[in-house]
Amino acid sequence: MTKRVYNFNPGPSTLPLDVLKKLQADLLNFENTGMSIMEISHRSPEYDKVHNDAIALTKELMGLGDSYKVLFVGGGASTQFAYIPMNFLHKGQVGAYVDTGTWSVKAIKEVKILGKEVHLAGSSKDDDYTFIPKPENINFPADAAYLHITTNNTIKGTQFHQFPDTGNVPLIADMSSDILSRQIDFSKFSMIYAGAQKNLGPSGVTMIVLKENILDKIEDGLPTMFDYRTHATKNSLFNTAPTLPIYIVKLVLEWIKDQGGLSVVETINRAKKDIIYGLLDENPDYFRAPVRKDSRSWMNLVFRLPSEELEQKLISEAKSCRIYWIERA
Amino acid sequence: MTKRVYNFNPGPSTLPLDVLKKLQADLLNFENTGMSIMEISHRSPEYDKVHNDAIALTKELMGLGDSYKVLFVGGGASTQFAYIPMNFLHKGQVGAYVDTGTWSVKAIKEVKILGKEVHLAGSSKDDDYTFIPKPENINFPADAAYLHITTNNTIKGTQFHQFPDTGNVPLIADMSSDILSRQIDFSKFSMIYAGAQKNLGPSGVTMIVLKENILDKIEDGLPTMFDYRTHATKNSLFNTAPTLPIYIVKLVLEWIKDQGGLSVVETINRAKKDIIYGLLDENPDYFRAPVRKDSRSWMNLVFRLPSEELEQKLISEAKSCRIYWIERA
Repeated sequence: MTKRVYNFNPGPSTLPLDVLKKLQADLLNFENTGMSIMEISHRSPEYDKVHNDAIALTKELMGLGDSYKVLFVGGGASTQFAYIPMNFLHKGQVGAYVDTGTWSVKAIKEVKILGKEVHLAGSSKDDDYTFIPKPENINFPADAAYLHITTNNTIKGTQFHQFPDTGNVPLIADMSSDILSRQIDFSKFSMIYAGAQKNLGPSGVTMIVLKENILDKIEDGLPTMFDYRTHATKNSLFNTAPTLPIYIVKLVLEWIKDQGGLSVVETINRAKKDIIYGLLDENPDYFRAPVRKDSRSWMNLVFRLPSEELEQKLISEAKSCRIYWIERA
Repeated sequence: MTKRVYNFNPGPSTLPLDVLKKLQADLLNFENTGMSIMEISHRSPEYDKVHNDAIALTKELMGLGDSYKVLFVGGGASTQFAYIPMNFLHKGQVGAYVDTGTWSVKAIKEVKILGKEVHLAGSSKDDDYTFIPKPENINFPADAAYLHITTNNTIKGTQFHQFPDTGNVPLIADMSSDILSRQIDFSKFSMIYAGAQKNLGPSGVTMIVLKENILDKIEDGLPTMFDYRTHATKNSLFNTAPTLPIYIVKLVLEWIKDQGGLSVVETINRAKKDIIYGLLDENPDYFRAPVRKDSRSWMNLVFRLPSEELEQKLISEAKSCRIYWIERA
């Protein structure tokens, strides 16, 4: 038997053992095709079923209907930082962004590189990104092209627990690090995107959920692969999709459904974070938890010990208990 | 034992059985890390070795030295059709393209979408793309930004067997469908790119080989993920690389090396294509081989039978012999 570690990597991150075993069992011969899932054409009925099952499961788990399209593309969420303003931010408009740390900063940077206008709708920068601005403190013009938020912030350990009502302004969210970890009213969003490697599967595929009416707002004249309509109209099969990563995402989505869906996943995640934060709060003289309580992440629980020496000791003792994470580069 | 088919899919395509078995054996526990290769951080020493081995093997098999960078990125070769002119084609210059069919046409289209200038350096369009223009018939201005060719054309079944000398003009090649299938003087090229799913591994990663001095020619002000310097300076780890596809590419590269490298691979591929083309040429009244002999692809051997009815019969009889390919959509 394999002795697996307790893998605390934020991404690429741990996958359900059942998913890995299923992938392993079928790896040389996918459903009696005589081929690996990797070797099957992306235009074949066998792959088509995998692809469409992944889309249907995404919608089912999110509670979204026919007015949403689910895309699977390559290139990583970082590429979307540029594609979003290229698609949706037109001349004379602003793209509104809430700045909650590293990933928001990167998203904002790309808008500026493109020579487009950013409106800072909210920020926690002055407090070292230790909180998420409350909805009532998020402000943007009524004709903004969109409001962009980062729902979970891996490095600072913050997470949105209330979402702003944006009215007619499309709400766009980078959910790379907390997608499908809890129940949310996903129908509030016009676009959700997430690199798979944190909560959905392996790296190499990005999930994009688009409300169909936002497709009408896309700027004409974009390069073919940058235009979300290319992927929406061709069901993400305009070019060769990253079929193996998508297959693994499908297995993870099935696993989530088998657990009981997002309500059960949320219950489990809530219980886990309550244990850790409970311990931190009971021992405030020992642990420092820099994030405001209302903004704490359920995904990335940030705490410090009284000294860096003790932190190093924790890391090395954790490793000897097969608790593993990579220290940030 | 698994009964595997003879998989003639052009891409995603067949992978060496040894590669699949190696992947399968280690899938739950990569080199005693207690994690799958998919679950390991892209910043870990374990993954770093995989990544750098893949790069070193690519250079070794291609016979390229320190003046070349090897990148692994997501998004597919189709995305490169736009990134290439964005990076290298400056105002006042032309991008020279040889049009040899579907993929060249798509590459040219993106330049035009970007409002940049295409110079048609050669074309076989008037003969239904049944040949590759000879080097002496490929013409372009001495100050062209680059000359772009598609070395193998899957659909028409043509392949470059002689490459133009481009002097100071960088030669850029889409080698998606014939990379590492034969010996080539790769040092003639300033950029080589290839979606992995035909000759290198699964879909989900694109290999890019760049001569370092071409990086100096990149247009400033591009979105971060579009700029090849981002990936070149960060060794393709600026963002989370598609680690599982890259790992499988590494296994394929090792397999190629174990076969004896490109000289042995070329000998095998030459023998295979000689059998098929030999049969076609010996039976010219039965088979139609539309491609000119000097331009025949070793990868995609196009032939027709006397009637479409017979072609359908061939397809169905092949399937009963476990010879499988997907018919084009």
